[in-house]
Amino acid sequence: MEGKSLLRFLFLMFGVLLLLVFTVFNLPYATPDKAELLDCTSTWCTSKNRFLKPHFLQDPPNPTRRHHSAVPHHPLDPLTVQEFNKIRTILSSHALFKSSPYALHSIVLQEPPKPLVLTWQKGDPLPPREASVVARVNGVSHVLTLNIDMSQVTRIDPGPLSGYPMMTMEDMTSATLAPLANADFNRTIIERGIDLTDLACLPISTGWFGKSEENRRLIKVQCFSMKGTANFYMRPIEGLTVLLDMDTKEVIQISDEGRNIPIPKAADTDYRFSTINAQQQMNLLNPISIEQPKGPSFTIEDHLVKWANWEFHLKPDPRAGVIISRAMVRDPGTGEMRNVMYKGFTSELFVPYMDPTDAWYFKTYMDAGEYGFGLQAMPLDPLNDCPRNAYYMDGVFAAGDGTPYVRSNMICVFERYAGDIGWRHAESPITGMEIREVRPKVTLVVRMAASVANYDYIVDWEFQTDGLIRVKVGLSGILMVKGSPYVNMNQVNQQENLYGTLLSENVIGIIHDHYVTFHLDMDVDGTDNSFVNVNLKREQTSPAETPRRSYMKAVRNVARTEKDAQVKFKLYDPSEFHVINPSKKTRVGNPVGYKVVPAGTAASLLDPEDPPQKRGAFTNNQIWVTPYNQTEQWAGGLFAYQSQGWDTLATWSERDRPIENKDIVLWYTLGFHHVPCQEDFPIMPTVSSSFDLKPVNFFENNPILRIPPNVEKDLPNCKASASA
Amino acid sequence: MEGKSLLRFLFLMFGVLLLLVFTVFNLPYATPDKAELLDCTSTWCTSKNRFLKPHFLQDPPNPTRRHHSAVPHHPLDPLTVQEFNKIRTILSSHALFKSSPYALHSIVLQEPPKPLVLTWQKGDPLPPREASVVARVNGVSHVLTLNIDMSQVTRIDPGPLSGYPMMTMEDMTSATLAPLANADFNRTIIERGIDLTDLACLPISTGWFGKSEENRRLIKVQCFSMKGTANFYMRPIEGLTVLLDMDTKEVIQISDEGRNIPIPKAADTDYRFSTINAQQQMNLLNPISIEQPKGPSFTIEDHLVKWANWEFHLKPDPRAGVIISRAMVRDPGTGEMRNVMYKGFTSELFVPYMDPTDAWYFKTYMDAGEYGFGLQAMPLDPLNDCPRNAYYMDGVFAAGDGTPYVRSNMICVFERYAGDIGWRHAESPITGMEIREVRPKVTLVVRMAASVANYDYIVDWEFQTDGLIRVKVGLSGILMVKGSPYVNMNQVNQQENLYGTLLSENVIGIIHDHYVTFHLDMDVDGTDNSFVNVNLKREQTSPAETPRRSYMKAVRNVARTEKDAQVKFKLYDPSEFHVINPSKKTRVGNPVGYKVVPAGTAASLLDPEDPPQKRGAFTNNQIWVTPYNQTEQWAGGLFAYQSQGWDTLATWSERDRPIENKDIVLWYTLGFHHVPCQEDFPIMPTVSSSFDLKPVNFFENNPILRIPPNVEKDLPNCKASASA
Repeated sequence: MEGKSLLRFLFLMFGVLLLLVFTVFNLPYATPDKAELLDCTSTWCTSKNRFLKPHFLQDPPNPTRRHHSAVPHHPLDPLTVQEFNKIRTILSSHALFKSSPYALHSIVLQEPPKPLVLTWQKGDPLPPREASVVARVNGVSHVLTLNIDMSQVTRIDPGPLSGYPMMTMEDMTSATLAPLANADFNRTIIERGIDLTDLACLPISTGWFGKSEENRRLIKVQCFSMKGTANFYMRPIEGLTVLLDMDTKEVIQISDEGRNIPIPKAADTDYRFSTINAQQQMNLLNPISIEQPKGPSFTIEDHLVKWANWEFHLKPDPRAGVIISRAMVRDPGTGEMRNVMYKGFTSELFVPYMDPTDAWYFKTYMDAGEYGFGLQAMPLDPLNDCPRNAYYMDGVFAAGDGTPYVRSNMICVFERYAGDIGWRHAESPITGMEIREVRPKVTLVVRMAASVANYDYIVDWEFQTDGLIRVKVGLSGILMVKGSPYVNMNQVNQQENLYGTLLSENVIGIIHDHYVTFHLDMDVDGTDNSFVNVNLKREQTSPAETPRRSYMKAVRNVARTEKDAQVKFKLYDPSEFHVINPSKKTRVGNPVGYKVVPAGTAASLLDPEDPPQKRGAFTNNQIWVTPYNQTEQWAGGLFAYQSQGWDTLATWSERDRPIENKDIVLWYTLGFHHVPCQEDFPIMPTVSSSFDLKPVNFFENNPILRIPPNVEKDLPNCKASASA
Repeated sequence: MEGKSLLRFLFLMFGVLLLLVFTVFNLPYATPDKAELLDCTSTWCTSKNRFLKPHFLQDPPNPTRRHHSAVPHHPLDPLTVQEFNKIRTILSSHALFKSSPYALHSIVLQEPPKPLVLTWQKGDPLPPREASVVARVNGVSHVLTLNIDMSQVTRIDPGPLSGYPMMTMEDMTSATLAPLANADFNRTIIERGIDLTDLACLPISTGWFGKSEENRRLIKVQCFSMKGTANFYMRPIEGLTVLLDMDTKEVIQISDEGRNIPIPKAADTDYRFSTINAQQQMNLLNPISIEQPKGPSFTIEDHLVKWANWEFHLKPDPRAGVIISRAMVRDPGTGEMRNVMYKGFTSELFVPYMDPTDAWYFKTYMDAGEYGFGLQAMPLDPLNDCPRNAYYMDGVFAAGDGTPYVRSNMICVFERYAGDIGWRHAESPITGMEIREVRPKVTLVVRMAASVANYDYIVDWEFQTDGLIRVKVGLSGILMVKGSPYVNMNQVNQQENLYGTLLSENVIGIIHDHYVTFHLDMDVDGTDNSFVNVNLKREQTSPAETPRRSYMKAVRNVARTEKDAQVKFKLYDPSEFHVINPSKKTRVGNPVGYKVVPAGTAASLLDPEDPPQKRGAFTNNQIWVTPYNQTEQWAGGLFAYQSQGWDTLATWSERDRPIENKDIVLWYTLGFHHVPCQEDFPIMPTVSSSFDLKPVNFFENNPILRIPPNVEKDLPNCKASASA
């Protein structure tokens, strides 16, 4: 055994040992005994404390990086290291946690009531700092509210009736090791000719399909061979599924159905540049960069971002990833900052795979509620994930024992100039006037990238000076593939359903969907808004009236209740979707508003009664509108893990509450159908889609009418760097 | 009268005089007597010859700018100045043009037959150079083919039965002046309190609505006041429409119905930066630029563009704007250049306005076939229309008398880095592996911007190294607005239909659509291709089989004939649309292909029997596929002006010809519904949509697997310029 393999083996064995200890003592949860602040930048809590590491491109170091001494300055600022530590102290002395082992599945700021946040101004004392904690104690889930200032647990709720909290990172990592404690599992691995040291396993949420997934917190583990490649995802040990009790780590069942399926080859699967030999490297392009010699045009104070005519609060969140709050844009006429959106974030993801067979049917992920979309957001790679001119923001989260840790460079913020045009007009030869007025488009991008095991989701919030917010989701990373006996399509009977595409010898990319549901608490010039479906429909005319037979008319329908605002898009029955403030009108009398503008999207084709679709019922429509309710944040329910679909956006909306001239929340689902193709192997080029929030009669006129064009003298002088 | 107004008045009077001369002598067409090469850079042929003007950012000057000595080097290279001059000589000695005045509506290269182009290689002699000329002689249209080398007219066709050729620039400019020769017209203008010197008029294609638009080439003229603003479009003289015979310039009818409607105010309509006072200018941002210190990664020889793994032929066209030909991408495995697309261009636009009243019903523009999408493409504004690192290409077109002129900087080509990600993967905390591999995305953009009177269309062809081609259309410029007595919506009865949005006092932005139809002659690894509708549909399962109730299945349907390939998109009955080469398979046996990937689009809601929709019937589906036919280039027919819809893509497709395993052409229509909003006043921020041509099992695997990441040492050293 070579040195590296030996190390891996020892590490693995240590894990197994640790697990055995846990199992024997029936202590599935770590107790809060670590005091140090970990920086889980690169690997999960195996690296040393690096929370004061060098700051990328920040000179002088940005104060937000001083996490140990950070204090909140805004009612929405996330919990600080000191606050996390205080919470640990409060909890450790609380009766609930005294006698029992426990795990803390989520510790986040309990945001103050919206009216308090809205009236708070810089300089005011902060509203009481509260935390919301989701804990599992002896197999029971609790939702606690803590007053941090008063060092008190103020409230304990049982949480939803069905489902479990988001997994902790410890849940996930320990699940991948648990099968190794099972002799049958080890035997089948060895019988397949795989070295235990080459094993890489993934924790796969089981979903819920009926009684067998009830009353027990379950997880399935599937494994891969990482021999010869870092891209073990392309080497599945097909058909082998281990069902575990996630609390006890007990192996409940081993399903072993793929013994006839070879493990696909490792060759040509590694994507790391270091593994590609020099002759094969493709240097197609000269260096190119976005340059801002006078520095960026934005400032970030703690979590408050100010750029051009925009201002918003930005924070990392373990479940949502990125939360944008209090987005306001300056009115060019009056100079005032006007409210656009109180809160916007990725509420849930739903990723059903389209293979009903034993080892695949349950793969119907809810990446935020099960895995933590923010927990999976890894440090961004400067110069590649974000351009050179980016600013980076860290996340501070808590481990399962409550210990805070830093996820450095989790979010980046940068100005983008992509060579696009903000507005233009040239007079044509028809009029012969000498006019050519063009304004370049520069935007501000807030980005994170979450790696939920194989897949990478890139989420961009892009702010434009014309008031538009574009929310873009990019998909990259690695496909979840299935082992297959086939090496060529000519071996496949026409009648046979592969459930996907043969991507390489013995590798099938399974068809799947991605749905990303956004919570968009729009507050257009105030909290009380209405949702208007501006329906575009054919109007027939009479011959006496006009030589035309038809035209298209816009008919405004204000939604009275939630069911009026359940929208499925139709190309031939189109609408615009406006959130307006019915109490505020423009100079010429149009209600001020923002519209949601879809781009490419996809809709779920699953049977609405299919258990995964019931759990993911928030994707049944592309748009929903609900009255604001601080408890309705997560479209798949607070406890999405093994949820049964009782607590989703769809069930809330069925209550059909009034939404006219109320504080309302718009929900938008961006969808992708993904039929894999060979270009996605072994790692997929980014595929993106987006939607826009766009001012519609919000401003009196074009808000960027008065911005200047680019002129040569303002642009930088650049030269190739010395090393060129 | 101040000096400027006096000048304008004199110019106007000169025009009127000229027109009178024309009318008296019944000579509507200029005879080819001008020998000089005009550069119509800024105004229509009023500026001096500047064809050797300084070259933007090209040092040394790019040889393509030496238009007077240019010779063709590729079978598809557009006609050169010398060739245009030769064509004029050939025509002037031809019997058809001897005795009569005439106008040349189009002179373009008659592209050699496709097999000749496909077999031609660099170094081979060029196939015979031919030109296609559309001429009107004594009120009759002719389509001529010329062999330039042999100085011969080889063929004369009458052209389609209905419709007229694209207008010449002279048609358009003379039409705007013609009403001034009419005393009734002048009287009504003066009665409305408008100085004749403040008048700006537009030539508006009449469309076809029945007998009254037959057997006579017509145009309607509507006018505006340019007093106090360059943005006269915002000051319509509402309800005044002059119907002209375009050949004789005779005023046929004056419709004068809007005398009660005030001309909207000029204040706050001018968009020119020079008119905005210094205090009001909004300097929101520090300078930002895309920089490439080692220069661009592309080369352009004449019209051949080579960049990264792409190669294609690029040329300006008076009707299509930009034509991309012979697009080929390098296979990273074999190193060979592989055919993707033989020819791609904007075939037609259809822009119906949604107001059936007298002064508006006929506004149903076909911008390419009526006005010339390329003729209207004005010089791009360096640093604003395109980034600093752009290369510019000129167009060389012919005036109505055959004289060549240069439209400088009509197309730009630039590399774009927008901070986006080509592909990425980071290992998540779940596996704990130290991997973070990210590749930046750099693309090549080919851009033009056409100003069809008020509107500006930005057309981008964007090439990605992963083999994807994105075709993006941006809409900016100025709305076509309607004068209204209303200054506030509170004056408007709820039942009244404004046909649009009140944008400012007395200004209504009329609802309209934009359809842009692309001709995409795909040649995926060869000419013979098939169109496959990969339909995604719900498959119900049985309880015995799986805990799932349903999944989504991909069913491949190969289109046998044209009607199989008439596609309307449906969100709940989705498909992928592949163009495959059935004779060429990947290593694992998938047919190689490209798919067209829609993003946001819109479909026409007009009655299919409405005359405008019959003429624009090419928008009845989002996708069509036809067998290759060199005469089927223009989706609205060769003669789109006053066409009756007999010669459109829809009529061709109804022949239902076989298309399986044939040389096929894919047609894609990108649509926009535009309900104007106040932000569009007085000039609209760009709205864009796009579609993609994306490799699907075309490559054996990810074609950009082996590109390197960015590293700091390769990036430029920049400093603010000296003037900072």
